[in-house]
Amino acid sequence: MRAVVLDRELRLRPDHPDPAPAGGESIVRVTLAGICGTDLELGRGYMSFRGVPGHEFVGWVESSGDPALRGRRVVGEINASCGRCSFCAGGHERHCPNRTVLGIAGRDGAFADFLRLPDRNLHPLPAAIADDAAVFVEPIAAAYEILAQLWPRHDRPILVLGDGRLGALVAMVLSCEQFEVVVAGHHPEKLARLSALGLRTLLESQLDGTFGLVVDCTGDPRGFRRALDLTLPRGTLVLKSTAAASGEVNLAPVVVNEVTVVGSRCGRFEPALAALAAGKIDPCPLISAVYPLDEFAAAFRAASTPPNFKVLLRIS
Amino acid sequence: MRAVVLDRELRLRPDHPDPAPAGGESIVRVTLAGICGTDLELGRGYMSFRGVPGHEFVGWVESSGDPALRGRRVVGEINASCGRCSFCAGGHERHCPNRTVLGIAGRDGAFADFLRLPDRNLHPLPAAIADDAAVFVEPIAAAYEILAQLWPRHDRPILVLGDGRLGALVAMVLSCEQFEVVVAGHHPEKLARLSALGLRTLLESQLDGTFGLVVDCTGDPRGFRRALDLTLPRGTLVLKSTAAASGEVNLAPVVVNEVTVVGSRCGRFEPALAALAAGKIDPCPLISAVYPLDEFAAAFRAASTPPNFKVLLRIS
Repeated sequence: MRAVVLDRELRLRPDHPDPAPAGGESIVRVTLAGICGTDLELGRGYMSFRGVPGHEFVGWVESSGDPALRGRRVVGEINASCGRCSFCAGGHERHCPNRTVLGIAGRDGAFADFLRLPDRNLHPLPAAIADDAAVFVEPIAAAYEILAQLWPRHDRPILVLGDGRLGALVAMVLSCEQFEVVVAGHHPEKLARLSALGLRTLLESQLDGTFGLVVDCTGDPRGFRRALDLTLPRGTLVLKSTAAASGEVNLAPVVVNEVTVVGSRCGRFEPALAALAAGKIDPCPLISAVYPLDEFAAAFRAASTPPNFKVLLRIS
Repeated sequence: MRAVVLDRELRLRPDHPDPAPAGGESIVRVTLAGICGTDLELGRGYMSFRGVPGHEFVGWVESSGDPALRGRRVVGEINASCGRCSFCAGGHERHCPNRTVLGIAGRDGAFADFLRLPDRNLHPLPAAIADDAAVFVEPIAAAYEILAQLWPRHDRPILVLGDGRLGALVAMVLSCEQFEVVVAGHHPEKLARLSALGLRTLLESQLDGTFGLVVDCTGDPRGFRRALDLTLPRGTLVLKSTAAASGEVNLAPVVVNEVTVVGSRCGRFEPALAALAAGKIDPCPLISAVYPLDEFAAAFRAASTPPNFKVLLRIS
């Protein structure tokens, strides 16, 4: 099969071996895949990943031991857990220490004709969710994870710092759940596009005052420092960026201002699927371009270029 | 009056001007004062403080507009707030942006014959609390602040990382509130003394596994990194150190493991006073030495020297 493979660099291999499913795994033919900030970071060394990247996808179940899955259009949770440890037993499969993660850790991902995932990770899609929306289920689920970890006040604005893909989706999710949101970033063109989607936006340099809840979607240690400055004493800062870089961070303000920093990663797919099926959220205006798999290099360049938001790979 | 003054270095001034009370402030003649890690850090530039350090004290009210305070033996909350802002109105006086802090920010402290504090900051002491215990009210209140911010599970051990003054008091407070505590540090002699007080201790190198709740009392950015490694996914790390240094910190594990980092600083005095009055906690075994004010330099050296815990200054 064709696959984009990260070794020292990203390359398209026309004859990569097809995935060999383990017991309880299905094979999915990938239709559409999204390029995420994490994919760009993997190329810079994050997680020391080698293999096929890609973890946002929609596709069709090609083969499965589960008759309920065969031939179904699906999306898939990316953490493949052991099902036996105390995390799995406690409902925290996404923190299973024995997990592999699709296209991120120990498991080939979605930038390929086929992928394999455990049957239990796959969610058949209702017809109401088209492919180009379904490819956003994983990052929308990651945005909903914030609301699984804490429940903000509805009467105070939430600051989303970062006007990229992640910031946009976090702002859309919080906004569709009736929270008051301000998105701030450095890119006037991106902010203009988000404003056109009905979001309240501000240039980061225009931010004034502090917020009880700040979500750092900057993907940058400097962003964390700025986010900390913008968090009210006794406030909460959600750290949503899996930035590869470590940086000089002075944590004294966390103590002095008694800030709570909440790390937030992947979420369960159900709330994202429900919001998309109900039409509460429409991520499709965030699609900046769609490239065929063979043009992955141009697609990755586009995904790194503001004011682009989401760049997709059309695989089949 | 005599006062230890931090300018470029710490010096005892025999003729420092007496404090001039503002409206609503009392003058306290200091009996006994404790040297805290923060005092040592102020000397290294933390908070850019200039003036008289010292914020752990017990003394007698020499003059006051409040007849209920005159002649009383007192301890005092160290944050002098404005009483008018939204933080003060919301019961978070300790985060008032207009505050001064005794011996730490904008207000001379306790390493002097006299200090001034707002009347409302002062707590008359019951006879049951002797001076050498009373001088611990402020750091014990800071330890209790953890329990004002979160309520741990009683059925899982809490790791207190750091075997210094702060770690010892945090462990004593959590332990006297029936939580299961392990104190870990680098100093066998300190750990032996804490074991003799009934605390469960471990050399940090012997730590194995992770904890759902870790309290970082190391006062060191490396301590934070180690504490993060020792925190279970989805666990909580309380950051209790006002370390002056910023350091290279990779926050990716906070996101990947969805750790909640809770900054924790000063606490209300009431729980500390109640625990001391009821005999639930006895900090006096932590006193390593008592020096007269005139020997402050030797006292500061002793406070920086393991295996010493608390060093006090006898002022009157």
